[in-house]
Amino acid sequence: MPLLKFHLYKGRSSDELDGLLDVAHDVMVQTFGVPAEDRYQIVNEHAPSHMRALDTGLDIPRTEKFVLLEVVSRPRGTPAKVAFYETLCSALQEKCGVPASDVMISFTENSDDDWSFGLGRAQFLTGEL
Amino acid sequence: MPLLKFHLYKGRSSDELDGLLDVAHDVMVQTFGVPAEDRYQIVNEHAPSHMRALDTGLDIPRTEKFVLLEVVSRPRGTPAKVAFYETLCSALQEKCGVPASDVMISFTENSDDDWSFGLGRAQFLTGEL
Amino acid sequence: MPLLKFHLYKGRSSDELDGLLDVAHDVMVQTFGVPAEDRYQIVNEHAPSHMRALDTGLDIPRTEKFVLLEVVSRPRGTPAKVAFYETLCSALQEKCGVPASDVMISFTENSDDDWSFGLGRAQFLTGEL
Repeated sequence: MPLLKFHLYKGRSSDELDGLLDVAHDVMVQTFGVPAEDRYQIVNEHAPSHMRALDTGLDIPRTEKFVLLEVVSRPRGTPAKVAFYETLCSALQEKCGVPASDVMISFTENSDDDWSFGLGRAQFLTGEL
Repeated sequence: MPLLKFHLYKGRSSDELDGLLDVAHDVMVQTFGVPAEDRYQIVNEHAPSHMRALDTGLDIPRTEKFVLLEVVSRPRGTPAKVAFYETLCSALQEKCGVPASDVMISFTENSDDDWSFGLGRAQFLTGEL
Repeated sequence: MPLLKFHLYKGRSSDELDGLLDVAHDVMVQTFGVPAEDRYQIVNEHAPSHMRALDTGLDIPRTEKFVLLEVVSRPRGTPAKVAFYETLCSALQEKCGVPASDVMISFTENSDDDWSFGLGRAQFLTGEL
């Protein structure tokens, strides 16, 4: 936790995908202060016909490098989320060549009792986390 | 925002898919009063083995045209959501030949600070939206 | 409802997949006390490159049988969710050969007005459910 679900257009190489996931993970660890092993990432690749992304009239261009990232997490607070948006966009642009205009993020928050990381336990409740 | 995630069975033509997405977008713009450019849609197509949908005992028949739509949005209020259900089902039946019995919808709501539409900014907080 | 979204690695047979979905459904019906027809399940299969799951430092080994289950549901209360974690892990280990260390679960909760099961109605509001 957090769980990161990436929606991408098809066409990235394995190296590009690895780099994207590594950078996103590093930014998450940095901005949320979670353990380095707190890595849960899922990638969904779509044809252009299957992912449509405009810009809500914000004049933000989209390219084939568009990344829509859904994050499921316990509450993080506004400052941490804003820092995540800023830092992720900067890092993806600098290290992965993804324009900051191509990074869209949506958070869904849940609670301590909503997570089990294995073994049938709710580790935030048991004191293990 | 909202983000619409469609779960469909494989088998629709490109034209059918385009029509479905266009109709759903139009209904969303109409019932939620959002900008026409507020379009974020993802389509996932599944084999019958990979999407199981019964009816909670409601006696609602399902066909291969079944649509499960997940909507992630800021809070919309009950009347707007109910209007969305009604209007979407009517429109999909009339314009896309999808029976109203084949349309299931699930909302997940989040908050202003949960969205960044690009450029590393939380546009609902910055005043841009 | 609940909606269960399974994220698996590619490689399971049809029988293995059927068994996994049946067991998860039975456990859900049992622990949440929902109707047997309350079955809504989606399966997403991923290449190893497209699903990364570590263990938050909990020393939980992961194998190719890893299951990440997202549950979207009306509020269930902590005891029911904890029972679901425990019972699901036991059942998957016993009946499907999935190690309890390979089962991760994340809940997202919503409300009565967030569900339409068909026909354009919000059945939790109309009194049908």
